[in-house]
Amino acid sequence: MKSTGLIVEYNPFHNGHLHHVEQARQLTNADVIIAVMSGNFLQRGEPAIVSKWTRAKMALSAGVDLVVELPYAFAVQHAKKFAFGSINILKALDCDNFCFGSESGDIDEFYQALNFIKVNQVTYEENVKKLMKTGISFPSALTNSFTMINHQGEFVDLTKPNNILGFHYIEANHELITPMKAYTIKRKNANYHDKEFSSSTIASATSIRKATFEGNQSLQKIEQYIPDSTLKAMEEYLSEYGSFHHWEQYWPFLQYRLLNISSEDLEEIYDIEEGLEHRLQKMAKESQSFQEFMNKIKTKRYTWTRLQRICVHILTNTKKNEMKKLHDKIQYIRLLGMTHKGREYLNHKKKDLPFPIISKLSSYPNEFVQLDVRAANIYAQGLKEPYRSSLFKMEYAQPPYYFN
Amino acid sequence: MKSTGLIVEYNPFHNGHLHHVEQARQLTNADVIIAVMSGNFLQRGEPAIVSKWTRAKMALSAGVDLVVELPYAFAVQHAKKFAFGSINILKALDCDNFCFGSESGDIDEFYQALNFIKVNQVTYEENVKKLMKTGISFPSALTNSFTMINHQGEFVDLTKPNNILGFHYIEANHELITPMKAYTIKRKNANYHDKEFSSSTIASATSIRKATFEGNQSLQKIEQYIPDSTLKAMEEYLSEYGSFHHWEQYWPFLQYRLLNISSEDLEEIYDIEEGLEHRLQKMAKESQSFQEFMNKIKTKRYTWTRLQRICVHILTNTKKNEMKKLHDKIQYIRLLGMTHKGREYLNHKKKDLPFPIISKLSSYPNEFVQLDVRAANIYAQGLKEPYRSSLFKMEYAQPPYYFN
Repeated sequence: MKSTGLIVEYNPFHNGHLHHVEQARQLTNADVIIAVMSGNFLQRGEPAIVSKWTRAKMALSAGVDLVVELPYAFAVQHAKKFAFGSINILKALDCDNFCFGSESGDIDEFYQALNFIKVNQVTYEENVKKLMKTGISFPSALTNSFTMINHQGEFVDLTKPNNILGFHYIEANHELITPMKAYTIKRKNANYHDKEFSSSTIASATSIRKATFEGNQSLQKIEQYIPDSTLKAMEEYLSEYGSFHHWEQYWPFLQYRLLNISSEDLEEIYDIEEGLEHRLQKMAKESQSFQEFMNKIKTKRYTWTRLQRICVHILTNTKKNEMKKLHDKIQYIRLLGMTHKGREYLNHKKKDLPFPIISKLSSYPNEFVQLDVRAANIYAQGLKEPYRSSLFKMEYAQPPYYFN
Repeated sequence: MKSTGLIVEYNPFHNGHLHHVEQARQLTNADVIIAVMSGNFLQRGEPAIVSKWTRAKMALSAGVDLVVELPYAFAVQHAKKFAFGSINILKALDCDNFCFGSESGDIDEFYQALNFIKVNQVTYEENVKKLMKTGISFPSALTNSFTMINHQGEFVDLTKPNNILGFHYIEANHELITPMKAYTIKRKNANYHDKEFSSSTIASATSIRKATFEGNQSLQKIEQYIPDSTLKAMEEYLSEYGSFHHWEQYWPFLQYRLLNISSEDLEEIYDIEEGLEHRLQKMAKESQSFQEFMNKIKTKRYTWTRLQRICVHILTNTKKNEMKKLHDKIQYIRLLGMTHKGREYLNHKKKDLPFPIISKLSSYPNEFVQLDVRAANIYAQGLKEPYRSSLFKMEYAQPPYYFN
């Protein structure tokens, strides 16, 4: 069976994603589509609008055959580590291909950029160092450094967010002993960061979430941008858990945590660089909402998403030394859902997989998975009782969704 | 000026307290009444119904001349440490006398008990050890051990909560180089733990709080048991901060903290003995309210109040090593309020005081006071915005109340 991997967040699954799944299947002639998906907290440092279980269900309903979780240690991360984790999981599942959406849509541009950087490594890295000294963020320095040597703009445009991610996928894949074959599909109509709707059927996940929260969690305004199965899954979530998830629901906990932690302990939290801890603690006391807090702490040096990720790490109490243990290699694959075909594929491959597959947490006492469990517990904390308790239980008791 | 010290919590100040202030003044012929009062978290491991500032105001309105804060490190403590802190602060303020309420009402009984225990120290301590092995709590073991040697019941009855506290005051006072003169007044009508009303004007603080929360924070049912000045102060609090304070408001934060802390770090929290941490973390996930959680974690070995205190320490992230630094001696006296006479007294004594007096926190960057600041911040966390922010600010900006 020919398999193609996708790297996704599905927050929530929308028509653009559906298009991508269908195109990927067609382009790569895949029998099986495998998605590695962020869990309850996402790459940009946000809680997912609905839990990973519901997002897995959306994916399966829309043509994905197998959904596995990208562990927190790789999901709530900058593009390079996010890509490393995703690509390695897809490879571990023995994918033949992987396929990502990009603004570029031309896979050759990515390989050319990779080669070009390798050839100009010294200049590239010197530029990065110089740029960092001007006080800009690391991702901006990488992008600007590349733009500086990419005089004619002949390679991929690394100022675009999906191109950046794609570049890191290509780079991570290139480091594998036997790389997968890479494909990219040009994104349709919507830009990644679009906050407003611009097409009649395709919209960015950002604008879909925005419309949902602005509409007081009503789904009417977003119906046209999501498959019926997504709509149904979101309606079910709302009736089962009372609310979608938004950073503001976690703000009291983040604020509380910033008030009770010592600055020494705060410095141990993953990705916090010296000096930031005092700023965070001071501003926590002076802010009445997450939005206000973020506006108060942002600087040129830290990107908005990095600060949001740091906030997630504080919320989940993820420490530097804990992350270090998890980063070297993937330790497990957590299965969220599968179709009949996905199950067949997995049965076929199972005995050769390099990591254990976790189907149900309660029967898998692995120390490495503890961070994901904690993240799931804290994600549930954003809900009120009795919804909170029922989401707690999910994490342990839920077997992977089976979609026939 | 002749001064008499009281050790109080005023949660809230009621007619029984008023009676005690008046009796103490009369009995000791005092010019100045000084109260050392728990801050925002109390001896029994509970948030105070209203903040320390409002409780200080209540006390001043009802005849107390000077209110100082018993630091968290001594307030959220078992009777012995609570008494040590209180007595030492009163002594530091150069009180001539101190006066406490008790079920006994006879000061000689307390001294006889103290002497009797000293004479029978060996038997007494052996009994305690034996009793502890049966799995009962330390306070119960102390009480039972005393009862075992107090055959004829000729000394004070140490099964009564106010007698126990009184005994520890007498003991702590006895260890001073020049002890204060001790007085006790028999408590009128209400028992410490009474949950229902039994008199027409005097009720326990417990029953007053219960009626307040049952009545949906209405004060109508408690009017007859509190002075008008307390009623007014409570009404003001409600309009200024939107709500009184109850453990259930802190439950989501306690639960959150128990979910994100590692069991190793939890074991570092003050007063947690090995093994308890796992029980707390397991039950946090399975409980939907503080009440339910407490019912699930209680054992014979830990008293209810000790478990509540442990919960407060987890909430405030108070660690064993941090408490150790604060326990040896009083480091400061924090002034909450004074009458004209109280101010005169303080001016008169100020130059001879063994510790600095903190009038306003913003001008006093003492490391020892940080735990009190943290406790105040976390106390404010029980309120919703915008009330939370305004209570945060109080802690730094509020000068002591001056009541003329």
